[in-house]
Amino acid sequence: MTQRNWTTRRDDKRARMAAAEPWLDGKVLERDRVGDALQALIRSGDRVIAEGNNQKQADFLSRALAELDPDQVHDLHMIQPSVGRPEHLAVFEKGIAKKLDFAFSGTQSHRIGQLMMDGTIEVGAIHTYIELYARLFVDLIPKVVLAAAFKADRAGNLYTGPSTEDTPALVEAAAFSGGIVIAQANEIVDDVSQLDRVDIPGSWVDVVVEADKPFYIEPLFTRDPRHITPVQIFMAMMALKGIYAEHGVTSLNHGIGFNTAAIELLLPTYGEKLGLRGKIATNWVLNPHPTLIPAIESGWVETVHCFGTELGMEHYVAARPDVFFTGADGSLRSNRAFCQLAGHYAADMFIGSTLQMDADGNSSTVTTSRVSGFGGAPNLGCDARGRRHATPAWANLAPEGDPLARGRKLVVQMVETFQAGLTPTFVDTLDAVAVAEKAGLDIAPVMVYGDDTTHLLTEEGLAYLYKAESPAERRAMIAAVAGVTPLGLSADAATTQRLRDEDKVRTPEDLGVSRTEATRSQLAASSIADLVDWSGGLYAPPPRFRSW
Amino acid sequence: MTQRNWTTRRDDKRARMAAAEPWLDGKVLERDRVGDALQALIRSGDRVIAEGNNQKQADFLSRALAELDPDQVHDLHMIQPSVGRPEHLAVFEKGIAKKLDFAFSGTQSHRIGQLMMDGTIEVGAIHTYIELYARLFVDLIPKVVLAAAFKADRAGNLYTGPSTEDTPALVEAAAFSGGIVIAQANEIVDDVSQLDRVDIPGSWVDVVVEADKPFYIEPLFTRDPRHITPVQIFMAMMALKGIYAEHGVTSLNHGIGFNTAAIELLLPTYGEKLGLRGKIATNWVLNPHPTLIPAIESGWVETVHCFGTELGMEHYVAARPDVFFTGADGSLRSNRAFCQLAGHYAADMFIGSTLQMDADGNSSTVTTSRVSGFGGAPNLGCDARGRRHATPAWANLAPEGDPLARGRKLVVQMVETFQAGLTPTFVDTLDAVAVAEKAGLDIAPVMVYGDDTTHLLTEEGLAYLYKAESPAERRAMIAAVAGVTPLGLSADAATTQRLRDEDKVRTPEDLGVSRTEATRSQLAASSIADLVDWSGGLYAPPPRFRSW
Repeated sequence: MTQRNWTTRRDDKRARMAAAEPWLDGKVLERDRVGDALQALIRSGDRVIAEGNNQKQADFLSRALAELDPDQVHDLHMIQPSVGRPEHLAVFEKGIAKKLDFAFSGTQSHRIGQLMMDGTIEVGAIHTYIELYARLFVDLIPKVVLAAAFKADRAGNLYTGPSTEDTPALVEAAAFSGGIVIAQANEIVDDVSQLDRVDIPGSWVDVVVEADKPFYIEPLFTRDPRHITPVQIFMAMMALKGIYAEHGVTSLNHGIGFNTAAIELLLPTYGEKLGLRGKIATNWVLNPHPTLIPAIESGWVETVHCFGTELGMEHYVAARPDVFFTGADGSLRSNRAFCQLAGHYAADMFIGSTLQMDADGNSSTVTTSRVSGFGGAPNLGCDARGRRHATPAWANLAPEGDPLARGRKLVVQMVETFQAGLTPTFVDTLDAVAVAEKAGLDIAPVMVYGDDTTHLLTEEGLAYLYKAESPAERRAMIAAVAGVTPLGLSADAATTQRLRDEDKVRTPEDLGVSRTEATRSQLAASSIADLVDWSGGLYAPPPRFRSW
Repeated sequence: MTQRNWTTRRDDKRARMAAAEPWLDGKVLERDRVGDALQALIRSGDRVIAEGNNQKQADFLSRALAELDPDQVHDLHMIQPSVGRPEHLAVFEKGIAKKLDFAFSGTQSHRIGQLMMDGTIEVGAIHTYIELYARLFVDLIPKVVLAAAFKADRAGNLYTGPSTEDTPALVEAAAFSGGIVIAQANEIVDDVSQLDRVDIPGSWVDVVVEADKPFYIEPLFTRDPRHITPVQIFMAMMALKGIYAEHGVTSLNHGIGFNTAAIELLLPTYGEKLGLRGKIATNWVLNPHPTLIPAIESGWVETVHCFGTELGMEHYVAARPDVFFTGADGSLRSNRAFCQLAGHYAADMFIGSTLQMDADGNSSTVTTSRVSGFGGAPNLGCDARGRRHATPAWANLAPEGDPLARGRKLVVQMVETFQAGLTPTFVDTLDAVAVAEKAGLDIAPVMVYGDDTTHLLTEEGLAYLYKAESPAERRAMIAAVAGVTPLGLSADAATTQRLRDEDKVRTPEDLGVSRTEATRSQLAASSIADLVDWSGGLYAPPPRFRSW
């Protein structure tokens, strides 16, 4: 038996905490000494998580990190669910950090792409969120977590408000592995009785510091109905008839685009006319999209579990606790880990959009000019092969005649055949292949694979890809709805007719949906102001969305 | 806009809590009034979670539930990760509960099978753990959770000790949906300063009650090395050479059988001889198996993240914080939700065993006489199609030549061709098919599907199923290693030879493993006493495992 020291992580943590001691009053760090404290608590080569969520950013701590001296602290390995702030990239440009594992980059997608290509950032992988959390307990155990909260007390208890998001997963990985948890809060109160509720217990947190200003929140999921086009409405009608009603989809996740916003706004109008209320779209796995308000108010929606929150939706959500998950304090409890689990294992359907799709149905939002990451799409947009319970929609996709047949998650890609600027959506080769080569990635960053995609919906028609009997037939089905793109023009007319006859492809006509019906007057709300009205004044849109 | 009441869940909770008020002092319930309180807090038809984990049981509360008057409370829908106690089934026999959704039944597998077949229990589905948690946020939102903790304080803060297990997932689902959280604790202390650490914040918990005795713990993962057979050692040697070393498997999960216990005990001996230390099996997703102690002590194991704990391993784990995830109090922090996530998304390999396998490689532990459920196997034993990061082992299974090719999770079934009693492991049709019919299940309870299984290892050879070019070839590969079972005897000798020539099947000889080497002297520990020695006396096996 060895004389090995089995407490190196704990000893190391104690030594670092002792070095930061001069600037700590218990767990509370003086704001002005944040740089000194980080210098004491972080060592070169550390794995560091800077909490970047969609709706909560450890931005004060990230700015402080970016101001460290790269001669003292360098080669950090950053782990970030979301890379959403300029300071998240500054640490690479300054030589403080070298390697990055992430899931989503949102507003930084152009710049991160450049830094990946020129070698400034060495990317481990572009993950889906819960894949990244999973690795925090196996091969990417973090040394330091920079977290964010609305409020903290002096014992380290954190109140995250409606933006719990990734915090429980990130903090747990460090708190129980000899890592150091540092949390910024908009406000520090004396004790737990002054916190609205506790989201993270104080015994998991080592340092709290009051930020210089409240953390930044990006209203990422707000889609102004004014920008929804007739083509999107047309496709939304096809989706409701050909997918939602066809399969009886009750539990689902929507992507963040205008396509799915159109569907949300058609439920109380077109959906009502089709007699679908209570039969489809009852249980949601979704951020609190403002465009879902009319469906909620019309009694379509039973429940919504949220990954995160959405700026402006706080009062509305708090007033609808039968629908949303809320705490004893009344505000939303979001939790991205559980919500992604719910989306993977408990939702009948994922429906989203993409920038590029190849002839085999592989799709990606990564292009040579933008590396936006995938967020939750790969996890939501794949078959959950560990699933062992049936719902009508899931079972509806099972092949017949096999006593061991299993159903499938519906994975729907809803795309117009051309992107803005008349670039075909359908490409010979995804840009992801070139990006992988240039940035030295181990695998091409595909968002959703063709063999996981069960339905492809374009303005030209709906391909039931899960019915394909071979890869060749799947390609023919994709080409059949690819319109006048080069891929679409390559489709064989006789084959397309056969696919229609076999009910593998349906045109709008087959579905009984006409373009002339697809007008904006079908939308339950045609502006942000309408959404505010639907909410009874509870929804408070951010200023940039206000036109009144 | 409707005049709908949006706070029915919250109002209902308040009414129920008010009805229980007479027996509550703050959140603390008098033990003797637990029946009255449950009667006030639970209504017929409710979805109720009775915490049954592998290592933590809300047994006091479950017994109280089973003593309610079925005329007053009936038709409960029970949701239980694990159905491990007789009282869990008594609620069905007494007519208090009607429907059950579960994941594992362990020691109750015979009785639960009978009750399913005779219609006493209506089973929703037999889930994998995190699938069941996922549904708690979508279509199985619980009304009441009966949870278990080591200690609670009067404010409801819970300390779960090393058995955190499922508690965070179960409590969160109810606490934030207007549900009622009732926790039993072995001990109630006055305030948080007397808790070793906080695992569940008090603001999530409504009622705490001191149990009449500590909750029951079953040492489910302890395998006595004395019962490991030469055949198991032989297969373990084949596994190490043909799978672990072949693919460079570093992150992994092991099932709970003697097969994998043999592998654990060969690492410091046979594995060392092969020069594999540091190259394989470094990062584990696993309960604290006592049989892993020699590998840990020999420096093979970098980290272990745990689903739950194991009775007797408390002091050992606490003394090895570099390896195990532990809290500030020093004890293990297990967490089944995150550990299952880790096993799904971050582990290279799952290796387990089964009772039956059909000719297509579908396997199940459900038989007509035992419905043990699957626990984590379906989640761990399926390809994680949302995964977007590469490791050498994962990438090693990718087909060559396709720029979009992805790797695969290694899913290994390790079985002897005959079960005890000389029943062939390979069957024409899984019993699961008949069980589904008799018990009215929506789908046959398959544990791991053949198309997810990448390797099949028997004492006759190792079939690299992921190399199969067609379902027919996969069947031939399975038959090639099925020995003298009817399936094995049906194998065509010429085909088997071709499969060996193409390196799709390897015999022990091909692998360079001989039966004569496979002796018990290869085991790093041959008894529980040896494991105690390896642990330096830190491992304290339960009495039934002590022979000294």
